[in-house]
Amino acid sequence: MGTVVAGGTIVTATDTYRADLLLEDQKIALIGETLPTGGHGVVDASGCYVMPGGIDPHTHLDMPFGGTVTADDFETGTRGAALGGTTTIVDFALHTRGDSLHNTLATWHAKAAGKAVIDYGFHLTIADGRDETMAEIPRIIAEQGVNSFKVFMAYKHVLQVDDETIFKTLQQCAKHGGLVQVHAENGDVIEVITKQARDAGLTEPKWHALTRPVECEGEATHRAIRLAEIANAPLYVVHVSSAMAADAISDGRKRGLAIYGETCPQYLVCDFSDYERPNFEGAKYVLSPPIRDKWNQGVLLRKLKNMELHSFGSDHCSFNLCGQKELGKDDFSKIPNGAPTIEDRLAILWEVGVNGGLMGPNQFVALSSTNPAKLFGLFPRKGTIAVGSDADVLVWDPNTARTISAKTHHMNVDNNVFEGMKITGRPRFVFSRGLKVAEGDTFTGRKGHGTFQRAAKFFPVQL
Amino acid sequence: MGTVVAGGTIVTATDTYRADLLLEDQKIALIGETLPTGGHGVVDASGCYVMPGGIDPHTHLDMPFGGTVTADDFETGTRGAALGGTTTIVDFALHTRGDSLHNTLATWHAKAAGKAVIDYGFHLTIADGRDETMAEIPRIIAEQGVNSFKVFMAYKHVLQVDDETIFKTLQQCAKHGGLVQVHAENGDVIEVITKQARDAGLTEPKWHALTRPVECEGEATHRAIRLAEIANAPLYVVHVSSAMAADAISDGRKRGLAIYGETCPQYLVCDFSDYERPNFEGAKYVLSPPIRDKWNQGVLLRKLKNMELHSFGSDHCSFNLCGQKELGKDDFSKIPNGAPTIEDRLAILWEVGVNGGLMGPNQFVALSSTNPAKLFGLFPRKGTIAVGSDADVLVWDPNTARTISAKTHHMNVDNNVFEGMKITGRPRFVFSRGLKVAEGDTFTGRKGHGTFQRAAKFFPVQL
Amino acid sequence: MGTVVAGGTIVTATDTYRADLLLEDQKIALIGETLPTGGHGVVDASGCYVMPGGIDPHTHLDMPFGGTVTADDFETGTRGAALGGTTTIVDFALHTRGDSLHNTLATWHAKAAGKAVIDYGFHLTIADGRDETMAEIPRIIAEQGVNSFKVFMAYKHVLQVDDETIFKTLQQCAKHGGLVQVHAENGDVIEVITKQARDAGLTEPKWHALTRPVECEGEATHRAIRLAEIANAPLYVVHVSSAMAADAISDGRKRGLAIYGETCPQYLVCDFSDYERPNFEGAKYVLSPPIRDKWNQGVLLRKLKNMELHSFGSDHCSFNLCGQKELGKDDFSKIPNGAPTIEDRLAILWEVGVNGGLMGPNQFVALSSTNPAKLFGLFPRKGTIAVGSDADVLVWDPNTARTISAKTHHMNVDNNVFEGMKITGRPRFVFSRGLKVAEGDTFTGRKGHGTFQRAAKFFPVQL
Amino acid sequence: MGTVVAGGTIVTATDTYRADLLLEDQKIALIGETLPTGGHGVVDASGCYVMPGGIDPHTHLDMPFGGTVTADDFETGTRGAALGGTTTIVDFALHTRGDSLHNTLATWHAKAAGKAVIDYGFHLTIADGRDETMAEIPRIIAEQGVNSFKVFMAYKHVLQVDDETIFKTLQQCAKHGGLVQVHAENGDVIEVITKQARDAGLTEPKWHALTRPVECEGEATHRAIRLAEIANAPLYVVHVSSAMAADAISDGRKRGLAIYGETCPQYLVCDFSDYERPNFEGAKYVLSPPIRDKWNQGVLLRKLKNMELHSFGSDHCSFNLCGQKELGKDDFSKIPNGAPTIEDRLAILWEVGVNGGLMGPNQFVALSSTNPAKLFGLFPRKGTIAVGSDADVLVWDPNTARTISAKTHHMNVDNNVFEGMKITGRPRFVFSRGLKVAEGDTFTGRKGHGTFQRAAKFFPVQL
Repeated sequence: MGTVVAGGTIVTATDTYRADLLLEDQKIALIGETLPTGGHGVVDASGCYVMPGGIDPHTHLDMPFGGTVTADDFETGTRGAALGGTTTIVDFALHTRGDSLHNTLATWHAKAAGKAVIDYGFHLTIADGRDETMAEIPRIIAEQGVNSFKVFMAYKHVLQVDDETIFKTLQQCAKHGGLVQVHAENGDVIEVITKQARDAGLTEPKWHALTRPVECEGEATHRAIRLAEIANAPLYVVHVSSAMAADAISDGRKRGLAIYGETCPQYLVCDFSDYERPNFEGAKYVLSPPIRDKWNQGVLLRKLKNMELHSFGSDHCSFNLCGQKELGKDDFSKIPNGAPTIEDRLAILWEVGVNGGLMGPNQFVALSSTNPAKLFGLFPRKGTIAVGSDADVLVWDPNTARTISAKTHHMNVDNNVFEGMKITGRPRFVFSRGLKVAEGDTFTGRKGHGTFQRAAKFFPVQL
Repeated sequence: MGTVVAGGTIVTATDTYRADLLLEDQKIALIGETLPTGGHGVVDASGCYVMPGGIDPHTHLDMPFGGTVTADDFETGTRGAALGGTTTIVDFALHTRGDSLHNTLATWHAKAAGKAVIDYGFHLTIADGRDETMAEIPRIIAEQGVNSFKVFMAYKHVLQVDDETIFKTLQQCAKHGGLVQVHAENGDVIEVITKQARDAGLTEPKWHALTRPVECEGEATHRAIRLAEIANAPLYVVHVSSAMAADAISDGRKRGLAIYGETCPQYLVCDFSDYERPNFEGAKYVLSPPIRDKWNQGVLLRKLKNMELHSFGSDHCSFNLCGQKELGKDDFSKIPNGAPTIEDRLAILWEVGVNGGLMGPNQFVALSSTNPAKLFGLFPRKGTIAVGSDADVLVWDPNTARTISAKTHHMNVDNNVFEGMKITGRPRFVFSRGLKVAEGDTFTGRKGHGTFQRAAKFFPVQL
Repeated sequence: MGTVVAGGTIVTATDTYRADLLLEDQKIALIGETLPTGGHGVVDASGCYVMPGGIDPHTHLDMPFGGTVTADDFETGTRGAALGGTTTIVDFALHTRGDSLHNTLATWHAKAAGKAVIDYGFHLTIADGRDETMAEIPRIIAEQGVNSFKVFMAYKHVLQVDDETIFKTLQQCAKHGGLVQVHAENGDVIEVITKQARDAGLTEPKWHALTRPVECEGEATHRAIRLAEIANAPLYVVHVSSAMAADAISDGRKRGLAIYGETCPQYLVCDFSDYERPNFEGAKYVLSPPIRDKWNQGVLLRKLKNMELHSFGSDHCSFNLCGQKELGKDDFSKIPNGAPTIEDRLAILWEVGVNGGLMGPNQFVALSSTNPAKLFGLFPRKGTIAVGSDADVLVWDPNTARTISAKTHHMNVDNNVFEGMKITGRPRFVFSRGLKVAEGDTFTGRKGHGTFQRAAKFFPVQL
Repeated sequence: MGTVVAGGTIVTATDTYRADLLLEDQKIALIGETLPTGGHGVVDASGCYVMPGGIDPHTHLDMPFGGTVTADDFETGTRGAALGGTTTIVDFALHTRGDSLHNTLATWHAKAAGKAVIDYGFHLTIADGRDETMAEIPRIIAEQGVNSFKVFMAYKHVLQVDDETIFKTLQQCAKHGGLVQVHAENGDVIEVITKQARDAGLTEPKWHALTRPVECEGEATHRAIRLAEIANAPLYVVHVSSAMAADAISDGRKRGLAIYGETCPQYLVCDFSDYERPNFEGAKYVLSPPIRDKWNQGVLLRKLKNMELHSFGSDHCSFNLCGQKELGKDDFSKIPNGAPTIEDRLAILWEVGVNGGLMGPNQFVALSSTNPAKLFGLFPRKGTIAVGSDADVLVWDPNTARTISAKTHHMNVDNNVFEGMKITGRPRFVFSRGLKVAEGDTFTGRKGHGTFQRAAKFFPVQL
């Protein structure tokens, strides 16, 4: 017995049209202007947009960082996601130098299995350029259903790898159907400036941003793109925070390269002045790359509008102010990096993008669902409303407003960088493979419903 | 009594999925994996892509030019289009200085009505910047169903208007929901160089290209974009022929502007050396902007792939070699400008784009159908496969090959700039609002079936 | 009987060294560490820089404009120049449509002869592109000692010419040893916006700037450079006011073109907020291109430092507030355009450039004397301290301060856009062909001493 | 008793004028149109340009490399230089990881002292970023007369340092008056590609170039400039070989940075096809960055003309084909890198620059003498013809031709990359501090005449 989603307006990355959907056997079975409901459950989507569930290409759940672990695990994190309208996440499995990629993946499978309330996939990070590591990449892609590999140009002595490793990873991925992701900041320069700031006794949260100048991101983005150009490899730049980095991507695309950029909600609505909030509240905004001067917000939005940034991820990485962020009370460099954004990612893009008049609902879907699905090998199973696709459906009511607050959000963390923002538009229903996981503010799914989603090989011409 | 298109793979700008379509009452009525056929006709789409019919945003039919008139009128031209897989064209109604836009439109309605075999819309050109002309623009948009207005920066003393007229047109369109199109070449410089070449006794067809240097296109494209920037207006640059012009568009988009670029099949497969063909055959390639050096082809293709060019038009403008192009036998500047490309537009993009490995079928649909529909106010009635859309359907067989030739094409003209090209992929069936207008090589439609399509206002965020 | 300039430090565009100079027979006769003074007059240059006299490449003296005439003629204007350290000016002879260039030049010779207190040359403006006008250019260069020709892209219906005229002028100059100068603003766009502002009842001086948006300058600069590129001609862009225009010049030079840029003192120290001064004082700053937002100042200075702008002119064009600027009391578009800057040009560059730490004295000399001399065919007769050069010598005391004021300046006008600025550094002595024309604040020259200076042909590799 | 250089035309970076010079006490004592010769020696400079002796900012003499040592030491190398018209060199003292900079310098002083026939200075390379090394920099600048420090971004595991070291060096130099030089190629990428080529059995000399793609140079140049931007430091990019790297420099200067670029004669006249010469002759051209495709030559020349490259060095590093280059007979990666260019540096720039019509003699002097002198703290003692400067004088006869050949050159090496080139223009006399060291083809100086030249602190505004 299926479910008819009745009376809504279907929105895909391309289309907007009045139609009913029949969800059956976890799939979208039928699309018609008015479908017979006989024998099926019916949900009322009138006045709503019926869109593919959100796909969050960038999350960090149950992740160790600097002696602590993120506040959200796969259960609480995916529950927050579901209530925000997201039906799939792709989380980062963090490779450790010397370990195998297969082990790494196994560890992360164990974290997610039986906990996640929505579907999930994995990216792998690459911590070293050993021959053994490089040799694993083709097998991971072909056998393990992971098609993307992230390298860090920052976090010296921790996650950072050298250009040799980046280049080899690009070559392997280009050859075997993978997509390299890059955290693009020059970690060497940051290392020097951070030490100088600490030696000078500068401790407040704002020094996190001031020790990571925007040119570090501009430089690293340009470098990664040139390396991709030499390797003839596609490249995905995560969490673009600044006009300078986004312009480097535009320049790469201008010369015909397959470069893709991602930005995140925090870069669209927060700005440098947030670091200067009193009472250590600035620590909420300590994440990397840092939040930039306000004028960058408009540039990033116009880049999204013009599809010079292609994907919208949360970079969710939650830490409590109390007990976690506090570790850096006397030293900004000890504040765990990250913010809880998995739940409100769609809300922010809808508010500033669609309500702000910069994009229509189709583009909202493209950025927050379809493009991530295509880039990370989940399409067309995920990321669209089409016959045969998974019944991951977001029924979005554009006329109801709510106010974001840590008091009412569903993530397991005591702060929210969007605290107090009023959003017009919110999920009415959320379906994950036909199962209603959210109805308004109520979680209606179940722990462990989510399953691992194998990624297809990356094919650069599909976006 | 409808038609079931059975067994094919649906392709839209976003989606690719196995499904059947039911065409009924000129519309797409139902989409399902397998539809019951009871009472309906059935066409076999197995092994085929089922796509929205092509939309050609740039045609010149029954158009006077330099004392002659194009070889194709609305009957022969649209018949060629239909057999190539195109189900809608948008033709240019040519305004004459001092005349009203309404009169101009009436003239073109008269040319098309009762003749066209597929649907059509109109763009209007703007020949002068008189207050009366500017005052007509809002009414044309609101009442006449035309949302785009083209200005010429070239053809001095004939079609060229000054920057004041361009700027006013941009302001009017920005205010009232229109989209300005621009033919971007610096006509003043061309005028000087052309005269110098003629004075020097240089007569062969290649001098057409040599008197229109690429910097003329680069300059004018940049200028038009800056004017649009000041007017805060969207802009559509027609027939981009060169890397230099395409880069100017990329630069505009990089700074967040709503600039759209169109290129045409002749710029992807012809090159400057074609002008040097013996026996005046070079005259076939006399069109403006001219065909460029070969290396530009790859740049344009990569720009299409990266969606830095957004639309693919034919710029069909056919003249017979015999009796028409011959007018310029002794003077390249007297050769009527244009080439017959309406029929093979889709074939060329498929061959160099999809078969060439640079893009997938989704992007083929986006460039040749969906984007033109969105830009010119025809979407979602045209340009997609969705419930409720017009039943303009192209069943495309990707495995059958043919060779282009003037001997076998269906346009009413004695030459073809793609003569001898082998194309793998061709229409199996073409439907216009549910009427089968082509089956393989056979025209099965009827004269006068085509109707005028009113354009909605242009809304810059919809692409 | 010569003059020994003793004890100073010689500064040229390249060199700085301790030496004495012997001025004899209007020339620099000898350079040695310590020269014998027997029989010669001696001036004490100790503690001073001994530099070539300033060359102002951009002045408007005795010029009719909008029904009035500039406040300064060749006597008062050159006297102000001399007291500021300038020993040569190049003034614009304004061609009128339909008139001959020879007549124009004759008119301007009559204005200057017997009046100028220092030497002068002429540029010619080009008001039309008639064959007769173009045919005069080679003869003007070869016979009349004028090597530069200015075209206006702004002032529609008055001075503005079309691109055809600009391009022909570029071709003629490239062929015959001339240098085209361009006033780069898009006059068509300005015409439309100005009318719209006036129609809306906007009258204050600031609307002068707001109706000439910076993109008009950016566009026109880019266009002029592209036209020069096609014509393979050198180009000199006058009075660059903005980063956008300066960047266009950088881009042209980056691709190897012989493009030269000039900026003026008012763009380095005034900014948009000056237009908002009360009591119509904003009218002082009405000049074209307008003064820009403050951040442009730093960009222009860094461009001077990096030699991406090459020449520093005053664009002196003086009008009294009382009786002249007042003509636009009720309509910003009727305010005569221009400001009195001939006297303080060197002072401003010294203060913001040298005292500001951005450039050394060599570069000061290059920008304000040597480069203009080279560009406008006066070098090596003018523009350097070398044996055989004219004894045009500025003895500059870097340690004495003064405050600029209309109350104390020597120009014949009632206002000064630099009013109240304190400058450290001023002329101690100024020599024109060996004649001491200024000593401190006292004019010691004579009316009519100045003679016309024939320009050599322009040779693009000399800078 | 001094020497009068009579009858010549003095050429400096700025000036060209007829005058005689008196050389006395190792200095230029007097400049006058016609000097009395009483008691002095006289050399006939009629028909010649009298210019400051060349300053070669980039030489490698007596340098160990890959188990061998350069063919030229300070005696043979400087003798070749002198006969080519160069009167000062600045050689690289190569720091070894863990060693002190002071030791390094002492080693190089010992190599040069008593041998050099002309004056010399030193640059220091930086092999590690240890605190001790960084702490030495200020003392080296203040006490040792060395103002420039070179970092390598290539030669992984040998000379390459990480970005942390580069950034610290930039900071130290910015603070203490030093100038950082950078060898800009991405050594990590080159390491990977080189290994892949060797593993694939590719051995010929051309693989040297093919394993060092131009993007490696473009990337590293961009990166170094960004690091300098963050450190607010000036930067000198050595041996720019390609348009891509030169464009990165233009972009940096466009945004106002103090970036300086050097190119070398081999990049102006050799091209990639030289690697394909038979019989291992391609090995002559094995140097880094490699010689590029031919079209880059014109770009580099236009960049020199437009002063977007500022300095012209030889990068002399000579190895015999026989016995040295042969080490890489079976493995391109074992061929010692470098070519003998110290003697013909001036000849090549004169031929392609001045005789080629792209620049005048002033610019020749600026690029090959004055600018290096200013950048490396030798000006005004060296690098100009001015009263009080060292009597380092090159009397250049522009009308005499010669043909370059290893058979006739004066360097101690068996090959010449300019073999067979005909040059019009050559030294007639060369003076080093008043001593005639060359007359035509004959060396007239003496071993050990050359002395170490202390560099003044670098001051970014002096160029």
